[in-house]
Amino acid sequence: MDISSTMQDIGRRARAAARLMARAEAGVKNNALEAIATAIETGADALIAANQQDLEAGRQSGLDAALLDRLELTAARIDAMARGLREVAALPDPIGQISDLNYQPSGIQVGHMRVPLGVVGIIYESRPNVTADAAGLCLKSGNAAVLRGGSEAIHSNQAIARCIRAGLAAADLPADAVQVLETTDRAAVGAMITMPEYIDVIVPRGGKGLIERISADARVPVIKHLDGLCHVYIDDGADIDKAIRIAHNAKTQRLGTCNTMESLLVADGIAAQVLPQLAPLLGDAGIEIRGCARSREILPDIAAATEEDYRTEFLGPVLSLKIVAGLDEAIEHIETHGSHHTDAIVTEDFSHARRFLREVDSSSVMVNASTRFADGFEYGLGAEIGISTDKFHARGPVGLEGLTSLKYIVLGDGHVRT
Amino acid sequence: MDISSTMQDIGRRARAAARLMARAEAGVKNNALEAIATAIETGADALIAANQQDLEAGRQSGLDAALLDRLELTAARIDAMARGLREVAALPDPIGQISDLNYQPSGIQVGHMRVPLGVVGIIYESRPNVTADAAGLCLKSGNAAVLRGGSEAIHSNQAIARCIRAGLAAADLPADAVQVLETTDRAAVGAMITMPEYIDVIVPRGGKGLIERISADARVPVIKHLDGLCHVYIDDGADIDKAIRIAHNAKTQRLGTCNTMESLLVADGIAAQVLPQLAPLLGDAGIEIRGCARSREILPDIAAATEEDYRTEFLGPVLSLKIVAGLDEAIEHIETHGSHHTDAIVTEDFSHARRFLREVDSSSVMVNASTRFADGFEYGLGAEIGISTDKFHARGPVGLEGLTSLKYIVLGDGHVRT
Repeated sequence: MDISSTMQDIGRRARAAARLMARAEAGVKNNALEAIATAIETGADALIAANQQDLEAGRQSGLDAALLDRLELTAARIDAMARGLREVAALPDPIGQISDLNYQPSGIQVGHMRVPLGVVGIIYESRPNVTADAAGLCLKSGNAAVLRGGSEAIHSNQAIARCIRAGLAAADLPADAVQVLETTDRAAVGAMITMPEYIDVIVPRGGKGLIERISADARVPVIKHLDGLCHVYIDDGADIDKAIRIAHNAKTQRLGTCNTMESLLVADGIAAQVLPQLAPLLGDAGIEIRGCARSREILPDIAAATEEDYRTEFLGPVLSLKIVAGLDEAIEHIETHGSHHTDAIVTEDFSHARRFLREVDSSSVMVNASTRFADGFEYGLGAEIGISTDKFHARGPVGLEGLTSLKYIVLGDGHVRT
Repeated sequence: MDISSTMQDIGRRARAAARLMARAEAGVKNNALEAIATAIETGADALIAANQQDLEAGRQSGLDAALLDRLELTAARIDAMARGLREVAALPDPIGQISDLNYQPSGIQVGHMRVPLGVVGIIYESRPNVTADAAGLCLKSGNAAVLRGGSEAIHSNQAIARCIRAGLAAADLPADAVQVLETTDRAAVGAMITMPEYIDVIVPRGGKGLIERISADARVPVIKHLDGLCHVYIDDGADIDKAIRIAHNAKTQRLGTCNTMESLLVADGIAAQVLPQLAPLLGDAGIEIRGCARSREILPDIAAATEEDYRTEFLGPVLSLKIVAGLDEAIEHIETHGSHHTDAIVTEDFSHARRFLREVDSSSVMVNASTRFADGFEYGLGAEIGISTDKFHARGPVGLEGLTSLKYIVLGDGHVRT
């Protein structure tokens, strides 16, 4: 069978399984999640053996150390997978939830019921734990899943798939509810993203290159996560200690994540007080600051920033710095240079905070908190399938709800329209 | 300037206006809506004169009577446009609304703020009133709009556009907040649906052909409304009087609307009681019934239904009829033959109603109410930009909320992540 027919067949089976999953009760879905977690724990040796095959092949094909690290399944990582599944089981079931059920003037009651999207396609790279994480979220949200991991993790992913199948079977859920592709043919991805009749949404998890390629060619909606060029703006109404604490944390708590601060804006009126204290702390953390002309009057030792520096997601120990006249210029800079991911103001000025919250068009807008909080777990979603930089359907950290939709329900007593 | 450059320019201006619209206060937006309504009322003569030009051109190019009727602006229709704008002004402003603001274990507060999508593109056919309706909804929801009406309505649309510009100016809102294309070049549509950098969502309003063409080529999300193949299922637990009233209303209250019943399913156990009463009423209303073999034992005079009849949105005085064993077969039939638009059960059986609501995957699922209620006004949305047959982003009747998104807001007091 050629790859296109194979994918059509997988799609058909996913669609059929999705109908059964939509009706599955919370208890049954939780039983499956528990059973998968147990299968992963009891099958840890087999997982590690399969993972060794991938690691060996990876070493031979010259994968670098960072990639090999991502690929590796350790005992701790296997435990984390099982724990993650149990955490998802403990979350409330979003499906079937009825909200806003109100009587209308005609006498009918109209409300919303939360329903699954249907079939979710996940395309990811080397981390095999995504197989278990994504399967768990799709299962809990009543969707069927088609998972396509990196070819370098094929043995690990298939071993995890066996645990998933065992768990589904133990809970009497359809085996096709989670299908992990067995092929490493790249054409499978092209097929997945162009069959809207079988796949309702694609969630790519990986580097920007992967996501851009998929978005460009997809005929199916994509929940996508592109740049995170995040700003902290220290307002002239800021508390100096909070400003230093937040800017330092937003840059240094973890480099290289999408919610790390890449650009620091400081109001002119407070710059001379903040920067001489903040700069040495950032320097101690190994951060290189590139600043505007005005900032270099205060910090003569820093390098000059180019316009490009204000448009760059460094994902590393570099920070662009700009002194702005005040709130208006800060908002203007963020709107024209940022990526609409996460931006924060530090201020005690109520009106400035109120305007910043309303006027900055980013998926997360913060007052007096580190950008590093932009995360599904910190937001109380319980789990995260990804972060969306789009406005359509889901925006910001996406939890179970992002994998659902709402249908209308109408209750009457023989009501007709006149 | 070629059409592509023209559209890029329109897109750029829409994007700039969208930023200002996102910040516009409710009172200012309502002033603009009132001012547009007044401009339409005081400019009624000019609107009718412009409309006469379109009607004359339409007659000469041989438009049929139905199209000419849709194109015509009467005094009553002009009043309705103005009234519609005032009704939108009276709705609560969805923008800036904060919900679910909760403290998290870290001490930060996390919540949602409702925000506009940005720039909304509307592509529609001959009815000029859509120009005013769509402008009003986009304006109220804080979006900028790019409107592309039918070429046969170009003079009417431009006359309405002048009223809109007058209203925007009176309220000090940017003139580019609503742009009504002046070109009738069909390439303009192609440009609109392929500039995601300037247009955030496309809402096509018109026939299925238009919507399918746009969906196939769009590189921008589309809120689309395809088939309405709606079912009423008369369960064996139905109250006979309610069943007859609802089935009759769902089919005959208006033919040709998307929420009209096209297929009637009746449980075998109740068919002999219901059908002999219902069929003559439908017959009196001029409805042709095409039934399955079993139904023709009860109603010997009706025509035989083909499999194709169960998959056809007649949009006219034809109804397909099928007798099913009971709830399971009814749900199975709806899932495999319907269009997931609106489906109703008539029953007094609580457990059947509960299962139907959960298991039927349609944008509106009803118990003991006519499918004709599936409508933004009946649902209390106050206005309707369209009906979505998709699950992604918006489903069912789409009001102001469908033109918005949610961003996260985070409030802290110097909180950092550890």
